[in-house]
Amino acid sequence: MRLKSFIDVPEDSHFPIQNLPYGVFTSPRNPEPHIGVAIGEFILDLYQLDKKQVFNGTHLRGKQVFLEPTLNAFMGLGKAAWSEARQQLQELLSADNPTLRDDIWLRDQVLIPMSEAQMHVPVHIGDYTDFYSSKYHAENVGTMFRGKENALMPNWLHLPVAYHGRASSVIISGTPVHRPQGQVLPADSNTPVFNPSRLMDYELEMGFFTGPGNALGDPIPVDQALDHIFGMVLVNDWSARDIQKWEYQPLGPFLAKNFATTISPWVVTLEALEPFRCPTQEQNPQPLPYLQLARNWSYDIRLEVSLQVENMAESFTITTSNFKYLYWNICQQLAHHTITGCNMRPGDLLASGTISGPEKESRGCLLEYTWRGTEPVELPNGKHRKFLQDGDTVIMTGWCQGDGFRVGFGECRGQLLPAKPVG
Amino acid sequence: MRLKSFIDVPEDSHFPIQNLPYGVFTSPRNPEPHIGVAIGEFILDLYQLDKKQVFNGTHLRGKQVFLEPTLNAFMGLGKAAWSEARQQLQELLSADNPTLRDDIWLRDQVLIPMSEAQMHVPVHIGDYTDFYSSKYHAENVGTMFRGKENALMPNWLHLPVAYHGRASSVIISGTPVHRPQGQVLPADSNTPVFNPSRLMDYELEMGFFTGPGNALGDPIPVDQALDHIFGMVLVNDWSARDIQKWEYQPLGPFLAKNFATTISPWVVTLEALEPFRCPTQEQNPQPLPYLQLARNWSYDIRLEVSLQVENMAESFTITTSNFKYLYWNICQQLAHHTITGCNMRPGDLLASGTISGPEKESRGCLLEYTWRGTEPVELPNGKHRKFLQDGDTVIMTGWCQGDGFRVGFGECRGQLLPAKPVG
Repeated sequence: MRLKSFIDVPEDSHFPIQNLPYGVFTSPRNPEPHIGVAIGEFILDLYQLDKKQVFNGTHLRGKQVFLEPTLNAFMGLGKAAWSEARQQLQELLSADNPTLRDDIWLRDQVLIPMSEAQMHVPVHIGDYTDFYSSKYHAENVGTMFRGKENALMPNWLHLPVAYHGRASSVIISGTPVHRPQGQVLPADSNTPVFNPSRLMDYELEMGFFTGPGNALGDPIPVDQALDHIFGMVLVNDWSARDIQKWEYQPLGPFLAKNFATTISPWVVTLEALEPFRCPTQEQNPQPLPYLQLARNWSYDIRLEVSLQVENMAESFTITTSNFKYLYWNICQQLAHHTITGCNMRPGDLLASGTISGPEKESRGCLLEYTWRGTEPVELPNGKHRKFLQDGDTVIMTGWCQGDGFRVGFGECRGQLLPAKPVG
Repeated sequence: MRLKSFIDVPEDSHFPIQNLPYGVFTSPRNPEPHIGVAIGEFILDLYQLDKKQVFNGTHLRGKQVFLEPTLNAFMGLGKAAWSEARQQLQELLSADNPTLRDDIWLRDQVLIPMSEAQMHVPVHIGDYTDFYSSKYHAENVGTMFRGKENALMPNWLHLPVAYHGRASSVIISGTPVHRPQGQVLPADSNTPVFNPSRLMDYELEMGFFTGPGNALGDPIPVDQALDHIFGMVLVNDWSARDIQKWEYQPLGPFLAKNFATTISPWVVTLEALEPFRCPTQEQNPQPLPYLQLARNWSYDIRLEVSLQVENMAESFTITTSNFKYLYWNICQQLAHHTITGCNMRPGDLLASGTISGPEKESRGCLLEYTWRGTEPVELPNGKHRKFLQDGDTVIMTGWCQGDGFRVGFGECRGQLLPAKPVG
């Protein structure tokens, strides 16, 4: 029998009782940030429930992690506590359970309409790392810049390439982003100029938040990695391609990426994603033992990127991709990141890199999709896009399709505003 | 007349009344982290002073920033508050002032011998960035890897190259570091192997902590940068050269650096460094306007790196360098870092990159000093070093030489321990 909530949730909602993702919100009634769980069109206020000592199981009793303004403390408790919370919330929201269903006062207190809430970055992100784990993406970009023969760097098939990103500029879906200004090298010139980026791009990514983490010097083995991963979000790694091209040698991208990274507000737990595990591409050559999985696997998460452009009634879907297209698995990413002893803390964010698939339609950024601007996207209103223009809104979404329900991520949305005048 | 404290401070001490750097310590009497200021062989406990409401000036009254376990809140208050605290502490410690000098009970309570204290990372570091600002260093490394003609990348003279580092693994002086293990590519092979790094190196750097910071999207102009820099520390950017070589293309160093970064415990304020400003090398070509200074300047900070090796009675000084050898100024670093809108928060750490000078003796890492191991360092005990060996202790120190006193940074020390067995 399918799990069902007393709260009405349509089949295409991202937030049925099978999901129960965590976020942090404020509302007119609760101006202080509270932790909540999404259910249909509502947010269940865990702060209020924790105040009422609802979480009285073995792992959560007395911990008061839901009185915190971020998810870090809960993430730090580990898998047994995450499972306990999920089970208790599913019981509380189930159609059979009268506790909340039949208590009109309690419902009014703990169920907040999403339309009244403002979402916030739900985690204090200690460190943010960005991988480069789609082989299709790496090959496309490599082909454009170095030709087909040298598309993949020699290390790419042996390790999940990554770099450190900027944690301070991770922002929540809905926050507009100003076009950045910086140094770029004009074509046919040896001297850089300063101007607003002309090659603004999105990158379709997903990211996971770490759980308890490891002490400095003690790597997380690949077969224990899932004990240290709490859940996932959508990520838009905004990129200024012209700034990137000029600055990135030899130490990697810096200003071209650190002005903004947008995440979706609801952290979907690995437990909710578990039914959507799927086998994925074999890895060849076989990785070194510290990266070996019995078999490569992923999650079947459908992903879309749409563009909402001025004078267009509806948004237009450009990219249709899937999380399963990634070559490197999340357990391998975490094992690799910690193999030299680097320590993870609860709430670190590890993003996937652009998630491109085998088809043109599944290319996860405009650089690839338009092949450096040589194949512009044609929009339904007759306009074209090589890269983003001021006023464009990028909307990413993703969900797993169950039998009559979806486990979804909601939206990761952001509008590009014109560059600010230099002060 | 020279400023003088009632506490006896020898001429070669790093911590006279002219310095007063900030740190965070615990001691048997104070197991909770307290903010303190170094004076001679003592730590003045600012937690105790703040409890007594000693800080009653315009900018600090009621703020209670010294009751915090880190310096972030104090750093966030800005320059006027930093000045006020410095002035008040200099008064309190001055030879003429009886308040503390003649109160034996108060002295016992607020002056803790350094020998009894344990120092801690004094700041919650939100983000850590590492620059690459020594031209000598960039030229040496570039020459080794790409030949003399292509030593500097085309962007190097136009912008202060940098990358994001890992904040979680910034550790305090004295913390030992295990030799990391990871993927390396053996010579004459296409297939990487997994083993402990064989090319372990230090990098002599300095770093500054940011003050109030900027909102996302609003760059800090170069001529306002000093309002946002609190003070400086010594930094050892431990590096595993063989891991770095294999992993760093195309996104920059990652695991080769993120296993540990050691900082010295005392944050020396810019106000204490002000008398040691000096002109430094002209920049040619002239940078773009957002990076332009009326004249390039630096601080005259003498730097040393010594090695303490098993069976050697004394440590042996390898590198003798100076902060003023950097090509890019700290104001330019901060202006560049924020030019695309990247936001700084109080307590972010921006390090300089390896500080090498024009002479062989001033090369700030073993890679350069031994020219990739081809010119090993000869130690007084007859042994040689191409790179670090297990058990070696790296000791960095630095100070400004005043007339009869030093404004110093103490030590940035760390011992390299053998690799841990893989669990």
